[in-house]
Amino acid sequence: MSSSMGNTVRLTVFGQSHSPSIGCVVEGLPSGFEVDLDRMRDFMARRAPGRGPWATQRKEADDVRIVSGLNPGGRTCGAPLACIIENTNTRSQDYDELARKPRPGHADWVAQEKWHGEQDVAGGGHFSGRLTAPVCAAGAICLQMLEERGVFVSAHLTSVEGVVDERFDALATDEAARRHLAEQMRTLSEKGRFPVIDEGAGKGMRAAIESARKDADSVGGMIECVACGMPAGVGDPMFDGIENLLARAAFGIPAVKGMEFGRGFDCAAMRGSKHNDPYRMRDGRVVPESNNAGGILGGITTGQPILFQVAVKPTSSIGSEQETVDLTKGTDAKLIVHGRHDPCIAPRAVPVVEAICGIVLLDALITYPPMP
Amino acid sequence: MSSSMGNTVRLTVFGQSHSPSIGCVVEGLPSGFEVDLDRMRDFMARRAPGRGPWATQRKEADDVRIVSGLNPGGRTCGAPLACIIENTNTRSQDYDELARKPRPGHADWVAQEKWHGEQDVAGGGHFSGRLTAPVCAAGAICLQMLEERGVFVSAHLTSVEGVVDERFDALATDEAARRHLAEQMRTLSEKGRFPVIDEGAGKGMRAAIESARKDADSVGGMIECVACGMPAGVGDPMFDGIENLLARAAFGIPAVKGMEFGRGFDCAAMRGSKHNDPYRMRDGRVVPESNNAGGILGGITTGQPILFQVAVKPTSSIGSEQETVDLTKGTDAKLIVHGRHDPCIAPRAVPVVEAICGIVLLDALITYPPMP
Amino acid sequence: MSSSMGNTVRLTVFGQSHSPSIGCVVEGLPSGFEVDLDRMRDFMARRAPGRGPWATQRKEADDVRIVSGLNPGGRTCGAPLACIIENTNTRSQDYDELARKPRPGHADWVAQEKWHGEQDVAGGGHFSGRLTAPVCAAGAICLQMLEERGVFVSAHLTSVEGVVDERFDALATDEAARRHLAEQMRTLSEKGRFPVIDEGAGKGMRAAIESARKDADSVGGMIECVACGMPAGVGDPMFDGIENLLARAAFGIPAVKGMEFGRGFDCAAMRGSKHNDPYRMRDGRVVPESNNAGGILGGITTGQPILFQVAVKPTSSIGSEQETVDLTKGTDAKLIVHGRHDPCIAPRAVPVVEAICGIVLLDALITYPPMP
Amino acid sequence: MSSSMGNTVRLTVFGQSHSPSIGCVVEGLPSGFEVDLDRMRDFMARRAPGRGPWATQRKEADDVRIVSGLNPGGRTCGAPLACIIENTNTRSQDYDELARKPRPGHADWVAQEKWHGEQDVAGGGHFSGRLTAPVCAAGAICLQMLEERGVFVSAHLTSVEGVVDERFDALATDEAARRHLAEQMRTLSEKGRFPVIDEGAGKGMRAAIESARKDADSVGGMIECVACGMPAGVGDPMFDGIENLLARAAFGIPAVKGMEFGRGFDCAAMRGSKHNDPYRMRDGRVVPESNNAGGILGGITTGQPILFQVAVKPTSSIGSEQETVDLTKGTDAKLIVHGRHDPCIAPRAVPVVEAICGIVLLDALITYPPMP
Repeated sequence: MSSSMGNTVRLTVFGQSHSPSIGCVVEGLPSGFEVDLDRMRDFMARRAPGRGPWATQRKEADDVRIVSGLNPGGRTCGAPLACIIENTNTRSQDYDELARKPRPGHADWVAQEKWHGEQDVAGGGHFSGRLTAPVCAAGAICLQMLEERGVFVSAHLTSVEGVVDERFDALATDEAARRHLAEQMRTLSEKGRFPVIDEGAGKGMRAAIESARKDADSVGGMIECVACGMPAGVGDPMFDGIENLLARAAFGIPAVKGMEFGRGFDCAAMRGSKHNDPYRMRDGRVVPESNNAGGILGGITTGQPILFQVAVKPTSSIGSEQETVDLTKGTDAKLIVHGRHDPCIAPRAVPVVEAICGIVLLDALITYPPMP
Repeated sequence: MSSSMGNTVRLTVFGQSHSPSIGCVVEGLPSGFEVDLDRMRDFMARRAPGRGPWATQRKEADDVRIVSGLNPGGRTCGAPLACIIENTNTRSQDYDELARKPRPGHADWVAQEKWHGEQDVAGGGHFSGRLTAPVCAAGAICLQMLEERGVFVSAHLTSVEGVVDERFDALATDEAARRHLAEQMRTLSEKGRFPVIDEGAGKGMRAAIESARKDADSVGGMIECVACGMPAGVGDPMFDGIENLLARAAFGIPAVKGMEFGRGFDCAAMRGSKHNDPYRMRDGRVVPESNNAGGILGGITTGQPILFQVAVKPTSSIGSEQETVDLTKGTDAKLIVHGRHDPCIAPRAVPVVEAICGIVLLDALITYPPMP
Repeated sequence: MSSSMGNTVRLTVFGQSHSPSIGCVVEGLPSGFEVDLDRMRDFMARRAPGRGPWATQRKEADDVRIVSGLNPGGRTCGAPLACIIENTNTRSQDYDELARKPRPGHADWVAQEKWHGEQDVAGGGHFSGRLTAPVCAAGAICLQMLEERGVFVSAHLTSVEGVVDERFDALATDEAARRHLAEQMRTLSEKGRFPVIDEGAGKGMRAAIESARKDADSVGGMIECVACGMPAGVGDPMFDGIENLLARAAFGIPAVKGMEFGRGFDCAAMRGSKHNDPYRMRDGRVVPESNNAGGILGGITTGQPILFQVAVKPTSSIGSEQETVDLTKGTDAKLIVHGRHDPCIAPRAVPVVEAICGIVLLDALITYPPMP
Repeated sequence: MSSSMGNTVRLTVFGQSHSPSIGCVVEGLPSGFEVDLDRMRDFMARRAPGRGPWATQRKEADDVRIVSGLNPGGRTCGAPLACIIENTNTRSQDYDELARKPRPGHADWVAQEKWHGEQDVAGGGHFSGRLTAPVCAAGAICLQMLEERGVFVSAHLTSVEGVVDERFDALATDEAARRHLAEQMRTLSEKGRFPVIDEGAGKGMRAAIESARKDADSVGGMIECVACGMPAGVGDPMFDGIENLLARAAFGIPAVKGMEFGRGFDCAAMRGSKHNDPYRMRDGRVVPESNNAGGILGGITTGQPILFQVAVKPTSSIGSEQETVDLTKGTDAKLIVHGRHDPCIAPRAVPVVEAICGIVLLDALITYPPMP
């Protein structure tokens, strides 16, 4: 499996749900940066299981150890940085039936078609959502490095089964919108917060998730992400533009099935006179008067907030009976997926989207800056 | 600019709107394949300008020459295949004003921020939609090679300013759906056809486009693409899965701002019990009973039709007056974009989407096949 | 640092001499292969320190754990395979002086120029020869996989300070040479053997090394490597030919300063009529009658033994007084390198050369096979 | 065939000896650089055939056109730069016999094993030395860009069949050596000069070449290359160090079979106390007192001249009768290679080595500079 991406800042992810360890290697990080390990842990905790009624009950410390890449002073030293998380709480007995009966919506069966039985079925193997933990570890570091460069990333749920959150105020570029967006991001940064701006929406989403759980079912959701502070002129079209890079990376998050930038799909029904962002001089600088482009034109940053949304499908593993096949017997079969599963993966995917965004933007900033 | 992509089958695109030539190099093509040059020209003609009321009036032969990569028998020989198209009909005088006044919605200004005046402004330079011509040349060859392997690709407009075409019958997997989809694809393959299944919808779309033209404005559109015949087990997650590769490539098409697979964004509002595709035994083979996954689970093909949709924004270049800035004077300014521009780029983008799909799938089939 | 290489089979190395762990990730390994862990350990033991008078006295178990990439049955499962070696016996106090006084011949000073003090000085950091341990772990697995495919790799010392070993009988291709080569390879595979064919030469080499040790000095050496059984038609020129790939990889081994294939440098003084390998029909197959090409023509395998030689410079760390500078004071200074260092690194580099050869050839065989 | 290399500055080469055109694409060149086309032509003329008694009589203008990548002012514009050379003087009738009878020492037979007859046999196809013309075109531009950055590259023949030229004075680092080296490089830059420092040696080499020609035979040679002015701290070990990158690229030059850096193979017989380059403070800067390392330690530049040597095998195509096989009949056969061939390719390979060096170093300087 090709679990690496990036040009200068290059991420490689390893591990399976139930292998001894999971982890990642990040090459090309700028040297001399002191990783704030507490903030890294806080960031990873947002993804960790077992935090609320919407999350799986598998409790793991997700204790991440940085085993290389730092100098004795604790700063990045130029060498590849490796993170390791031990897998301590594995219950592979849950998964024996699944080797025979592929779970609908999961990668079990395609893995069988690809590896003919050699794939690691337990817990979904390398396909497991658990593999987003090392992605978050790498992301946490990249996001900290971006902050030092004045780039701030934030994501939240925009909808779960019809319940919608307030959107980021990132399509307008005036001072009021800017302040409002900053406030929204501040709100989302509150520790322990369910990842929505509007608490009422959060309540509704949790209710929808809880209702799905009671029905032994699951629901999907939408996640919106914004990155403020990227300078203009970053990215390298035709195929290493910011959209190309973000999209390639984001579709690496399990369950993501759609992605849009700025106005996104709505653009298809708009006229150019409305969609084009007019330029204005403001305090001697050129500024697009709106941000329908989502901060990216021709693959290159405009200096406005980078804005995108991803669609997350409902969790494939559900407790109600499903139709599948028995690969051993070659017959149709019924399946009830036991074990610990989130009825909605989207809340825990929010920091993963931030992580992916952070890794890609740091790489782009270093690899494809404006010409000097 | 990073205008190359691919692993084994590797595409590199070169040229600017008004440079002497444009073209591409394709490394890693299987040897021994006889390119059908007539079909290649037909394919490229679908993208070529000047064909109807919805297209720009810039008429160019788009005569493509294959200058390397074939043996004396006209078959691919293993060496990199290069295609060249001469730029004969350039009118760069149209573009003088644009060096000072960036066109809203276009890459003019970000290019200025990146290259500080050294970028080739004429005709949009390397950002020009004209660069999709060599992409189509490469795509035409890859699509022919895919057909030899039993893989068929087809795309069409699904909407233009609210006028919608019939969708591909690719979310169901029964025999009736399969036959219906084949019929839809056959319909779309008719030479000279406006790229819709339902001719009524086509009429409506052309009317919408014509209306935008009269308003000196433009409209966007949606394009749906399907690929039938891909075997199960192709693709290499986490970051070289089929969705990752298609997304990275598709966002290289100018004006694409969104992308979704299978049920796409709708999945966010669905429950798992509805979104999961149940498996059934059919004639001794495992078949997903529906195709909400769009032919891809965990980044790997399921053997069902690969289905995706992209959103194309309205053409940035419009004839009505827009607000911009004068970079030389440092003042706000007005701009009317003269020259030849499509009021809707989506119809001509349809074969480009097919081309990108063909290049990516051929590469994936060769680079990441099922384990032997 | 860019510590990854490979196309399908992709190696990423991490760790510093004194970081908590070192290790590697290998993506793209064929699935279903049962790694023989005992043979892997035996292979790694050949590189491990502390084995004889010619090796450093730092004794570490080099216990390698495979923490991902295997299924419960212990076979490769398609997911990235990760190996971890804990660093247990670190004595960083040895290295305090070196932060100020760069060791001649070592990377200390260039690292300072590159990272301005942030590099990990202890034990040479990521530059340490210790990082060849994870390379050997990856190599051991690839070599086993190659054997299953009929490809066998062997290396030995060809010279140390003027003492020369018998060369591989790989420039002739007749039956006698073939048998002789097989015998040479068998001899070298004896467990615990000093890596030479001719034991007398080994004795002389060890004496030269011991003499250098007594002088608080060091010596270099030459290593020859052969790979038998590679089919003809593998490799992808112009820049992914076998020579390109092997050379890029081999110069990643610390201390390697030269490389030659087949007749190598001698070819420069030969005439074409002598250097060209004539073809003959043997039992209905085309066979080159000699192997001056070293098994590679135009970057592609000929089916004959792949033969190359690398030059290893004398260990940079020596116990006698050397002239250097004091970076803190900005003055000339004297330096005596204390700590544990091999007076000749070449014997321990022999399995590393085999490992690199194995990783590259397995990757080439999978990525660039003959066209079907 | 994989005919691309590089990270930021990425070269892709296309064409066959007798295809309509040959050429290259260079992505990632810095923008705003005015290519000196006259100097580019002069550079390419050094490689061009037909210049003297030592060169093939195939006379082609090698007229290179830059068809993209420049702005209207003639400066690089950020878009991929493409060069095209038309093939005008092809005589494919010379090559008919060769499809059946592979030339010893050439890639004919391995190409047959790889592509089973689909390869382009005429003139060696993509393996032809003619493909070094576009490499030189790309190199000429990169070398000019390097000069602007204070980096100067020069190469010469160090030996042909036992006749040796004076070596570059690049192993010492004192002022006298520095001046002497500059003078040697100046001498070599004289237009029309046979590429040696010592004219007497040049006479001897030409005599050796002429003698080989009379014998319908060929000879090999050694080429030494130096690059002065590279700052310290460039390169990215473990696998993108300067040696790794230069070696991967240099083995892409047809006929190169060996490569060494600095003292090279001699290091194997040296002691560390002699091979290590001691550091001294000179005018407040750290300077290695000698340059046995060839300007590279641990894959990173030391700021001293980068020095390497490559071995070029004798031209495979010779006029005297050779033993080969007839692939059609499956019998042994005799072959006399007709057509136009250099009895020694090394003189014309000298600028190719400079070109490769220039492309790699420019890429390294941009991709892997010292940390800021």
